[in-house]
Amino acid sequence: MSVSDAVLAAMRQTNEIFNSEVGGKRNIDALDRVYTQDATILPPGGPMIEGRAHIKEFWAQAIAAMDVSAVTLSTVKATQAGDTVVEIGRADLTMKSGQSAAVKYVVHWKQEDGAWKWHVDIWNMNQ
Amino acid sequence: MSVSDAVLAAMRQTNEIFNSEVGGKRNIDALDRVYTQDATILPPGGPMIEGRAHIKEFWAQAIAAMDVSAVTLSTVKATQAGDTVVEIGRADLTMKSGQSAAVKYVVHWKQEDGAWKWHVDIWNMNQ
Repeated sequence: MSVSDAVLAAMRQTNEIFNSEVGGKRNIDALDRVYTQDATILPPGGPMIEGRAHIKEFWAQAIAAMDVSAVTLSTVKATQAGDTVVEIGRADLTMKSGQSAAVKYVVHWKQEDGAWKWHVDIWNMNQ
Repeated sequence: MSVSDAVLAAMRQTNEIFNSEVGGKRNIDALDRVYTQDATILPPGGPMIEGRAHIKEFWAQAIAAMDVSAVTLSTVKATQAGDTVVEIGRADLTMKSGQSAAVKYVVHWKQEDGAWKWHVDIWNMNQ
């Protein structure tokens, strides 16, 4: 089932928090508005990580290590699944060195406290 | 929402086709019973691939290249989402060389022709 324009707009708002606050300003506490409390992430090269507190630790280290200067998330396909959404997306990363990287991902979205947030988040590199 | 025992059993049946027919016997046509017609896979190290015909070409090459002798898929967490299921899982691969590898994945499951199948499939390596 296709996703309503209102939900797509709410999803864009959440993705924009990740782009500008986390990718841009390295404001890790903004992840409270991105991930659900009991979210799970499955990062390449490591075990899965459960719970927002642990996810914030992961991103604090990962963003510093990758030396990212900008992130842009784009939805490729979004499907309504009950009161949740499954999104296939693309992340374009720019490093401070000027290098770039393309990442693809699947996010299972849920509503929490009236906002649409990432509940399951898995990604891998295109190259 | 948790997934019923009947659906979990149907999912195990599909995963078992992948384990024994695809991983074990390299019977690529068995993927007709694993993926939906319009499924999408997001493999590490390459672009996303849409449609079962292209997915079969991918796996024919990938399984030959990896020299896999056995695959075991296990469900870590499954969540009902409307008439679909979101699964977090783990794949243990054994190579003919005797080496092993742990892979984690997210699959969005849908029913097609009365069977539960993989509609979106993304994975990455733990190491």
